[in-house]
Amino acid sequence: MTTLTPSYDHLTGTWLRMHHFGHLQSIAGWDQAANMPPAGNEARAAAMAEMAALLHRMRTDAALPAQLARAEQEPLNDFERANLREMRREWSAANALPESLVQRQQLATSRCEHAWRQQRPANDWVGFVGNFRDVLALAREEAALLSAHSGLSKYDALMDRYEPGMTCAMLDRVFGEVRQWLPDLIQQVRDKQAAQHRELPLLEPKGPFTLTGQRALCEQVMRMLGFNFDAGRLDVSTHPFCGGVPEDVRMTTRFREDDFLGSLMGTVHETGHGRYEQNLPRDWLGQPVAQARSMALHESQSLSFEMQLGSHPGFVARLAPMVQAAFGKQAALEPRNLHRLLTRVNPGLIRVDADEVTYPAHIILRYEIERPLIEGEIEPEDVPALWDAKMQELLGLDTRGNFKDGPLQDVHWPESLFGYFPCYSLGAMYAAQWFAAMRQAMPDLDAHIGRGDLTPLFDWLRDNIWHQASRWTTDELAIRASGETLNPAHFQAHLRARYLDA
Amino acid sequence: MTTLTPSYDHLTGTWLRMHHFGHLQSIAGWDQAANMPPAGNEARAAAMAEMAALLHRMRTDAALPAQLARAEQEPLNDFERANLREMRREWSAANALPESLVQRQQLATSRCEHAWRQQRPANDWVGFVGNFRDVLALAREEAALLSAHSGLSKYDALMDRYEPGMTCAMLDRVFGEVRQWLPDLIQQVRDKQAAQHRELPLLEPKGPFTLTGQRALCEQVMRMLGFNFDAGRLDVSTHPFCGGVPEDVRMTTRFREDDFLGSLMGTVHETGHGRYEQNLPRDWLGQPVAQARSMALHESQSLSFEMQLGSHPGFVARLAPMVQAAFGKQAALEPRNLHRLLTRVNPGLIRVDADEVTYPAHIILRYEIERPLIEGEIEPEDVPALWDAKMQELLGLDTRGNFKDGPLQDVHWPESLFGYFPCYSLGAMYAAQWFAAMRQAMPDLDAHIGRGDLTPLFDWLRDNIWHQASRWTTDELAIRASGETLNPAHFQAHLRARYLDA
Repeated sequence: MTTLTPSYDHLTGTWLRMHHFGHLQSIAGWDQAANMPPAGNEARAAAMAEMAALLHRMRTDAALPAQLARAEQEPLNDFERANLREMRREWSAANALPESLVQRQQLATSRCEHAWRQQRPANDWVGFVGNFRDVLALAREEAALLSAHSGLSKYDALMDRYEPGMTCAMLDRVFGEVRQWLPDLIQQVRDKQAAQHRELPLLEPKGPFTLTGQRALCEQVMRMLGFNFDAGRLDVSTHPFCGGVPEDVRMTTRFREDDFLGSLMGTVHETGHGRYEQNLPRDWLGQPVAQARSMALHESQSLSFEMQLGSHPGFVARLAPMVQAAFGKQAALEPRNLHRLLTRVNPGLIRVDADEVTYPAHIILRYEIERPLIEGEIEPEDVPALWDAKMQELLGLDTRGNFKDGPLQDVHWPESLFGYFPCYSLGAMYAAQWFAAMRQAMPDLDAHIGRGDLTPLFDWLRDNIWHQASRWTTDELAIRASGETLNPAHFQAHLRARYLDA
Repeated sequence: MTTLTPSYDHLTGTWLRMHHFGHLQSIAGWDQAANMPPAGNEARAAAMAEMAALLHRMRTDAALPAQLARAEQEPLNDFERANLREMRREWSAANALPESLVQRQQLATSRCEHAWRQQRPANDWVGFVGNFRDVLALAREEAALLSAHSGLSKYDALMDRYEPGMTCAMLDRVFGEVRQWLPDLIQQVRDKQAAQHRELPLLEPKGPFTLTGQRALCEQVMRMLGFNFDAGRLDVSTHPFCGGVPEDVRMTTRFREDDFLGSLMGTVHETGHGRYEQNLPRDWLGQPVAQARSMALHESQSLSFEMQLGSHPGFVARLAPMVQAAFGKQAALEPRNLHRLLTRVNPGLIRVDADEVTYPAHIILRYEIERPLIEGEIEPEDVPALWDAKMQELLGLDTRGNFKDGPLQDVHWPESLFGYFPCYSLGAMYAAQWFAAMRQAMPDLDAHIGRGDLTPLFDWLRDNIWHQASRWTTDELAIRASGETLNPAHFQAHLRARYLDA
């Protein structure tokens, strides 16, 4: 049998093989976080570095450029052409980096991340810097190579791995705008909530909340949110994440006996990631076009679930009885009080615990530190003082000496995920934009949510985001879904509507 | 820097890379059995088949024969020479098989094993045969190729993968001998135990035994047996096994609320495998010489733990208080009754539940069925009738129509592990031989065990078996450890001493 697209077919075969190898790498990475005993780490790091090197060799195979060039001349349909565009993007990024760098990075990040699990609770900043210096040196090397290859600035080049097309110039504009209205908005919301609390005191839920009860509740809520347990699991890890593969999504959370809201809403967040993965176009799995479009779009799904939906008064009214069934009736768990708890605005030290109003401040802070770190303008030793100054400036909080709730709190830096943080706030903005578009298309959306009918919402996300995967650029996808490219005005409008006008 | 052994060094580099890839494959296999949700199986099977094909390509690299030949001329020490011998053995076995066969086998066994998990409880022999026919056809193809390559008979060629050097001729002699004395021994033991039971009734433990209590007890016993939890875990799977990698051993068990002895002694069994793996020579990990010698030797460790030690009256006297602390005091859990429960001889349908006296009958039956299956003398349709006839003949049991407790009970056939079963009974014989050698070297061994001092026992196993890994052939290892090659007389003597003379 002959084919009209021999080079393209050869390429899809190569990418399918990488998909299979990536499957093993992904499950091993999940296992490393969720299961692996401590003495297993050196061997695991070596095994995963070997696989990273193999995948890198496949992406830098000397035969690829000619195959890509020939495939571009073959008669492809739109979908195949989008797939080829994404193949070229991956190829281009991989060929900027020598295999030895990829392997050294895998080893350095595995070591740093593994040690960080102990160093964070021990508040051991100095110990952390010992490993982190290596991670950063390699990230700078990577940024320099990617920059030389792409013509982007160093930080832009790193960010491009997660959010193709996003630049510091755009971020500076968007974050600069947020910096203008955010402090004032936080103050207004806090004043309003303080007055409400004086009138009707906010009740704190009384624990302990059993871990088995929390796990059962999380799984029940995941089911309500459409997570397919035949093709995924929920487990426990130090830092919650959504891993695995689209065919077998591995979500993690963490439980505390004295608080159930953190793990519950964290699980709602990861479920957004999980549903995106579980609903990528099945027939194309293994091909680049079937991958999630970008990390900001991924976060737009987790934040659509956690923030747009999770703190929606109609949704909270459905959630409250489930919470009470799990932990017993108490006034603090009545719908209205639960909703007030979920929308309480309170500047705090921890990003993942932050409310959606103060959250952008955590991101702006990290962006303003990791960008000069990568550009070589500051060193790891400078981070604690900068961290503290910016927490003072943005949220009025003192973090001196408290590294574990400061620069040690996130897994991103030990794992060398520089350029990732901005995606969280971009994701929050996209989520607000999606809900604005949904309400325009379905004026009765809020009534549906209030009735517990989430189908129209999920249908819209599936048709406009999940099934589109990487078929379009982010800008094209946003226009098709909502009629415009990223417009942060929707986020500001959402916050004002929920926190000031409601 | 130049080296005097460039080809040998190149080979060790290749084998280290295969060790790293094998690590990912092994963890993915463990995850498949212990964690994976059902809809994840097709993707997992494809990913593992891809890796099996890659490993096969590495073992059949056209450059290897010349490298092996050159390395044999290089100045190697004894250890390195043993390593090279094992490399050649692996190379030779792999080169008998085309990559496409390896890949088809991986797919067929993944599918068959996955379906078997449902088919076994459903007693669905016909459904099973639908998949098993493919598995068997591929195993016959493999056996024919291995046989042509090695000059061994087809079944010998398959068995050689697990037990290098073992042949049907030797098995027929050893099993033929056992067939002579076993039925009579079983009868004598049963008569003796029946008389004992009339005098002093055997008490059955009363449940339920909570799963959390069983898990805690299993972990406590694993610690007593020296399992290193910093480098391993205990989880749950349908069919208990010991997987993972030497640096991170993944043991599994299964729990039933109405019986704790099955999971407890199963765990003791797997702990023997686990300690062998955890104590392979660390400096050589990744090289063939650092792998466990053979499957019979592996089973000799699990059965040293489960049978030789686990049913030792001195050990049971230490175990009983732990059991009572877990589940409360009851007369059935007093040391003497517990020991009688553990040494009760009772012909039954299930191999993994069998006592050590009737166990060889289960193995002989399987050997006598899988050997003609592989040789093409019988077909899957013939198995149930043969199974029933042999269960009648060897143990006096009727199994007609009960497939789930008959030929569907083991994971070995769905996984195409033909030639593995004999290793269990060979392992039991080696275990008896090790304990005879230990008692000769340490006449106070039983007193040590009675005092709960297991160190001399573990030291002997570590020095004579675990640390020796694949440095010697099985025969050489047995001679160094015990002064003679496999001698089944020790097994018979052990059974007579424990069950008739005690």
